[in-house]
Amino acid sequence: MNKPALAIDLGGTNIKIGLVQSHVIVAQVSLDAHSGSGLQGRLPFIEKAVFNLLVEHNILLSDLAGMGMSVPGIVDSTQKRILSIDRKFGDAPGIDFSAWCDKAFGLKLAMENDARSALIGEWKFGKAQAYDNAVLMTLGTGVGSAAIIQGQLLRGKHFTAGILGGHTIINYNGKDCNCGNKGCVETEASTWCIAGKVKAMEGYTTSKLAEEEKIDFESIFRCAAMGDAVAVKARTESLDVWSACAINLIHAYDPEILLLSGGIMASSETIVPYIEKQVHQHAWTPWGKVKAEAASFPASAALLGAGYLVSNA
Amino acid sequence: MNKPALAIDLGGTNIKIGLVQSHVIVAQVSLDAHSGSGLQGRLPFIEKAVFNLLVEHNILLSDLAGMGMSVPGIVDSTQKRILSIDRKFGDAPGIDFSAWCDKAFGLKLAMENDARSALIGEWKFGKAQAYDNAVLMTLGTGVGSAAIIQGQLLRGKHFTAGILGGHTIINYNGKDCNCGNKGCVETEASTWCIAGKVKAMEGYTTSKLAEEEKIDFESIFRCAAMGDAVAVKARTESLDVWSACAINLIHAYDPEILLLSGGIMASSETIVPYIEKQVHQHAWTPWGKVKAEAASFPASAALLGAGYLVSNA
Repeated sequence: MNKPALAIDLGGTNIKIGLVQSHVIVAQVSLDAHSGSGLQGRLPFIEKAVFNLLVEHNILLSDLAGMGMSVPGIVDSTQKRILSIDRKFGDAPGIDFSAWCDKAFGLKLAMENDARSALIGEWKFGKAQAYDNAVLMTLGTGVGSAAIIQGQLLRGKHFTAGILGGHTIINYNGKDCNCGNKGCVETEASTWCIAGKVKAMEGYTTSKLAEEEKIDFESIFRCAAMGDAVAVKARTESLDVWSACAINLIHAYDPEILLLSGGIMASSETIVPYIEKQVHQHAWTPWGKVKAEAASFPASAALLGAGYLVSNA
Repeated sequence: MNKPALAIDLGGTNIKIGLVQSHVIVAQVSLDAHSGSGLQGRLPFIEKAVFNLLVEHNILLSDLAGMGMSVPGIVDSTQKRILSIDRKFGDAPGIDFSAWCDKAFGLKLAMENDARSALIGEWKFGKAQAYDNAVLMTLGTGVGSAAIIQGQLLRGKHFTAGILGGHTIINYNGKDCNCGNKGCVETEASTWCIAGKVKAMEGYTTSKLAEEEKIDFESIFRCAAMGDAVAVKARTESLDVWSACAINLIHAYDPEILLLSGGIMASSETIVPYIEKQVHQHAWTPWGKVKAEAASFPASAALLGAGYLVSNA
């Protein structure tokens, strides 16, 4: 049995910290990301949370194989540097994470993009296990992706291959995206854009959504299920955007299976069949049909993948 | 010096036949594709043209290394079968090309998708020579693509990886495409769709384009240069569609260089700088800027690549 690894999943809202052994998350704790104020200032809180977790579970640093870190940005997994990330973690590219990890814990570090980490988690322990050709799409604050082609995790020369599915242009006359592009999947259907999009819709002020405390996919799917016209429109448009993203990923990487993951997957019973139907109708796959399935570990695959990378980078 | 190879580039309009030695096309001839009536009926004409070419250049079949064939469709390069192709060559998936090649010429066969063949030609002999990470985009009757990632030509499990850039959705509410998808690059800006698109534009009947014998990119770019408003609109929209395709390919495959090729490249002095500017403004490439350049051999790279594959499949 491998030694357990410390795994950190850096999210825009929460920072998850786990002790991971193979496919098992032995212990887990979550911190607010407070990402408006950068990442450097959160590192001492991460250290404290790690030590609390270790003490609580009676584990020594010397029992650990190392630390794996999953990051929502473009990551140089060789140099263990963040190359580009949303401005909420604007200071992250300047941080030497290897030095920090060594100083704080005496551990070696593995670091990877979060969607790639999640796909590794699914590939080694979840629904992608039987496949050498798989794509993962994460739907949440942003839209992420990752690909495995013929048994190789796709990284590319500058570490961007496979992970920019959310920044595929699916509406070339669309709005500007945070990334500098326009008409990206993320600008058309993601948690960060959806409230603004809904509020601009005709009929919004008299819709059920106008009475909601928060406009997000939870309230949209709930109001749509009650027949609210604006919510139904927002749901359909979002499902069509994600389906277009899924088809573009399939056309790009030629997978056997497409796994869907991320925060929005609480509504997976609506999302997965819709996307699968669109994929089966519209993707050009003369060999057969790509399976579309909800991921095995929509909330924890990135921790499992980051843990795996510690001993298998 | 390698033996020369016979190379065939199967196009929708013309079938090019060449004798290729390394980067040199020793001799070349072209046949009408007559593709409305399928491919099987054209094979005897190809045979005849090959024998004429050999006699004319005093070359024996035994002097040849083999035959390489470049095909505008999804190709199983291992089994040498066409898996899917536009309906104009509807009978092609049923043809056993290896058997035909052996029977007609006693030669072994290599077979590959046309954009992949062209990228191989550019990679071995043209502008992609210095790169291990390159994407090619062909603009013509359709829009094709191919990718090399870290020194490997991307094929994928079912031979579709890299080549479906023209079937990336860039307008998710767009029109149906021949491929079964909708809002593809090809349905928005390619030779097969552009006349219909222009004729539906407001002001068409009084535009210069209405007086043209043929509406294609040649007449559109020419009339746009004279300031015709409809032509300018068609030109700008097409350039924006191709730019979106280019950015999507760059996001998907992480290349250092993007080569532009195909029939439309007669207007390359307008097309290449426009796409490069869009790529530099909008592609998310924190490492630097992707070069965009016209291919070295826009008309013959597929022949060179097909010839190369004969001895290096």
